[in-house]
Amino acid sequence: GVLGSGDFARSLAIRLVCSGFKVVVGSRNPKRKASLFPAAAEVTFQAEAVKKADVIFVAVFREHYSTLCELADVLAGKILVDVSNNTEINHHKESNAEYLASLFPACTVVKGFNVVSAWTLQSGARDGNKQVLICSNNQEAKRTVAEIAQIMGFTPVDMGCMSSACEIENIPLRLLPAWKIPISLALGLFLCFFTYNLIRQVIHPYVREQKNKLYKIPIEVVNTTLPCVSYVMLSLVYLPGVLAACSQLYYGTKYRRFPDWLDQWLQHRKQIGLLSFFCAALHAVYSLCLPMRRSHRYLLIETAVKQAVEKKMTIWVEEEVWRMEIYISVGIIALGLLSLLAITSLPSIANSLNWREFSFIQ
Amino acid sequence: GVLGSGDFARSLAIRLVCSGFKVVVGSRNPKRKASLFPAAAEVTFQAEAVKKADVIFVAVFREHYSTLCELADVLAGKILVDVSNNTEINHHKESNAEYLASLFPACTVVKGFNVVSAWTLQSGARDGNKQVLICSNNQEAKRTVAEIAQIMGFTPVDMGCMSSACEIENIPLRLLPAWKIPISLALGLFLCFFTYNLIRQVIHPYVREQKNKLYKIPIEVVNTTLPCVSYVMLSLVYLPGVLAACSQLYYGTKYRRFPDWLDQWLQHRKQIGLLSFFCAALHAVYSLCLPMRRSHRYLLIETAVKQAVEKKMTIWVEEEVWRMEIYISVGIIALGLLSLLAITSLPSIANSLNWREFSFIQ
Amino acid sequence: GVLGSGDFARSLAIRLVCSGFKVVVGSRNPKRKASLFPAAAEVTFQAEAVKKADVIFVAVFREHYSTLCELADVLAGKILVDVSNNTEINHHKESNAEYLASLFPACTVVKGFNVVSAWTLQSGARDGNKQVLICSNNQEAKRTVAEIAQIMGFTPVDMGCMSSACEIENIPLRLLPAWKIPISLALGLFLCFFTYNLIRQVIHPYVREQKNKLYKIPIEVVNTTLPCVSYVMLSLVYLPGVLAACSQLYYGTKYRRFPDWLDQWLQHRKQIGLLSFFCAALHAVYSLCLPMRRSHRYLLIETAVKQAVEKKMTIWVEEEVWRMEIYISVGIIALGLLSLLAITSLPSIANSLNWREFSFIQ
Repeated sequence: GVLGSGDFARSLAIRLVCSGFKVVVGSRNPKRKASLFPAAAEVTFQAEAVKKADVIFVAVFREHYSTLCELADVLAGKILVDVSNNTEINHHKESNAEYLASLFPACTVVKGFNVVSAWTLQSGARDGNKQVLICSNNQEAKRTVAEIAQIMGFTPVDMGCMSSACEIENIPLRLLPAWKIPISLALGLFLCFFTYNLIRQVIHPYVREQKNKLYKIPIEVVNTTLPCVSYVMLSLVYLPGVLAACSQLYYGTKYRRFPDWLDQWLQHRKQIGLLSFFCAALHAVYSLCLPMRRSHRYLLIETAVKQAVEKKMTIWVEEEVWRMEIYISVGIIALGLLSLLAITSLPSIANSLNWREFSFIQ
Repeated sequence: GVLGSGDFARSLAIRLVCSGFKVVVGSRNPKRKASLFPAAAEVTFQAEAVKKADVIFVAVFREHYSTLCELADVLAGKILVDVSNNTEINHHKESNAEYLASLFPACTVVKGFNVVSAWTLQSGARDGNKQVLICSNNQEAKRTVAEIAQIMGFTPVDMGCMSSACEIENIPLRLLPAWKIPISLALGLFLCFFTYNLIRQVIHPYVREQKNKLYKIPIEVVNTTLPCVSYVMLSLVYLPGVLAACSQLYYGTKYRRFPDWLDQWLQHRKQIGLLSFFCAALHAVYSLCLPMRRSHRYLLIETAVKQAVEKKMTIWVEEEVWRMEIYISVGIIALGLLSLLAITSLPSIANSLNWREFSFIQ
Repeated sequence: GVLGSGDFARSLAIRLVCSGFKVVVGSRNPKRKASLFPAAAEVTFQAEAVKKADVIFVAVFREHYSTLCELADVLAGKILVDVSNNTEINHHKESNAEYLASLFPACTVVKGFNVVSAWTLQSGARDGNKQVLICSNNQEAKRTVAEIAQIMGFTPVDMGCMSSACEIENIPLRLLPAWKIPISLALGLFLCFFTYNLIRQVIHPYVREQKNKLYKIPIEVVNTTLPCVSYVMLSLVYLPGVLAACSQLYYGTKYRRFPDWLDQWLQHRKQIGLLSFFCAALHAVYSLCLPMRRSHRYLLIETAVKQAVEKKMTIWVEEEVWRMEIYISVGIIALGLLSLLAITSLPSIANSLNWREFSFIQ
């Protein structure tokens, strides 16, 4: 059974019908709404729909939950699935599912399906996240809903008892929250270092010697900026650990909470580290592209011609050769090690390591 | 208990014995077959084996299920594990497990272990897929079989109730079905563009100016072909979404099914996108290799020598310098963005994103 | 309830309090220990603590389990969670959890939480492994503990019945055991080939012709060493499969166990293959860096100048051009194929392939 006739209710009904379920839709105005639902779904009045169904998806807004109270008698003993979402994180004191459970104490409430979009429901779980997070205080009901999700093509994930409902309801509102601060930080650092390098490599030679080096902006200036950003970000990964250790030594205990800013910082280390790796990898690609450029070829030929005309046979500078060999060699090893760190931060790899192995690699 | 004496039955018996279980094998001709099984497994007549065992693996072909009917009385109340596979997808109307359940209504049937190979069973789950998909209508029986799988070193995955049996039986018959069309498409596109570029870069100069440019085939022709394939594939990822939107606007509803060809196309977008990324990455590596080639070095020296002999000191062409700088710089950024897309299509990353984050990145 | 006042007990208490549980700590000397625990946790005598709690975490060493025997009466009927670890793999004949269960037959023992570190418990599951492996013979108790783990922010994983306890206790003692032999092997091979190449490319020219080629050590010598290591490792991946097939043909049966050394070798193939890929990838990066070096530029200019002075207009050697084109082209294709192999060895990808697809790709 599905209560409601919004977008999500319709998508749910379509998917249930496609998966071979017998679906009955409860609406306040079944005649007008019937055309919106697939022909195989029976659209009828709410009370009648509820009577015919054992599992009822409540696809109405939290604000209208109280209007269902008149159905309390027919709903008693049935499984109610709360599929609702909020518009803000932690909008209400209690989760929607817990509120629904408090309104209908005679029903078994299961939270679920709110993490999938109406579009995914309609078209079937194709790519991206196929998981449906489910929680309930009743094992039997949870298992029933999990099996419905399985048949619909999703992967049910047991999230435990009702107290997880709040967490599940907050998930669809998230938009990469852990990445906001690290990305702003990386962009800020990039801008600072880019300006400095622009002045140093392009503007200064132009002002002083009237040399036009504008062609250096897209590649060379960017390429000297990236490793600076990468270095600073990498140091920001290891710094909070040192600060935390100092704070523990200072207070003489491991059991004192860190100040909030340090705690936040410790939590963002993984993201900062991955951005540092991303900058380092881009720097590697940019550097590798340097000899492909026309400007590199022209400068090379010009030097060769000058040497030939002046009949200077040798140009070898031992110190510069060594500097470059060591610089490249150390750079490759550093990139290799950072790659290992980046790979172990993949969820499926991290789950196959125990904490000793994880900290050994880190 | 194991019924059957084929390859799979033997491997199952070996693994069960190695995992510390007491195994009894039921065979029609126990004397002749006993030598095939490990010494620790007791090989006896079918009826006797069934009496001694609580969980019975039915390792016989579907065609011979009916020969077990004489054992119906001794089998009553036991857990039967259907490990069978089909030779074709959706060969029979009902799954093997459901057929077995209909033959032995007094037994509890569990589907499982068909997704692992006899070789994996024998040698233990080492690498590759360690999952054993299990389904049954009886929770208790499913849990018993899941624990046996766990002790044998596999990861049991609960696939819900018996209606999933058909899906589980089809899994081992699959051979990358979603990749067939995209790979043929990529190969076809590659051939077309390769022929065009071969004519343009090698055959045409030879016919017109008698210049031998055959050395360009392995790298330069391939390298101009790859980005063409990558571009066309990338546009084929975004095109069906646009067509779907147009179709929805035209019919004025989101709830009309798309035609089959469009639906198929929408489902293959992920694979097409990954192949597009693969071609783009290969193009990047090929391009980076260009300055490593002997031919590049020879052409460079020849130009320098010609310039020096003619005493032309400068060769700088501002326009060409800029074109190359911008071309490379945009290429690197595009590759970086495509890499992000490719990483988010890893199952473990996709599962940690909600649908808003997933579509934001896409 | 938490029994014990060590580091782990305290971290457990902190986390439980932070997750909203009512915690009571049982200690032999509650007055002296109370200051170590968060204020919200009640610290009292062991017998009293046990009376008030339904789920009791036993955070004491295995050696002191017997001292709890005096509490047997009050413990009866409660759930005991064994969080202990050993100091050596398979130190005792039976796992700690099974030993605890044998001491308190009237209790339900659940193994769990030993795979997380005290630090993770205290600071919350941030990155790395969030899984808590749980096993027990009692479903109800296992589910209760799983829900506590869920609320604490961990991902509970059902590992089946008590016989898995030994395996779970061994996990935190592991430090990448499968990698030790392959890494030693790779390092050994690297050293051998490095010495050979050092003699051949640097020492020999110096001794014979007094040429100083020391600058080749950091990049060129390493870069000729890496592909040798990669090749040998790759052959070591496929060799044991061939040997196993020969052994099966020789003995005429698939059901004979391989000798131990071959079995060990077969089990390390994945790690050897990944190291081979790592060396091949490093070789690719090193090779791509070759034209970036100063030494490359200097040699190029010197050749051009020599040619120009001698007025030799052409330097083209068709054979060398072709050798390089084919060499690079084959190298890129090999790297692309090895990358596919490496990607399919990611756990989340491997789990989405059936064994036919996995062996097709391998």
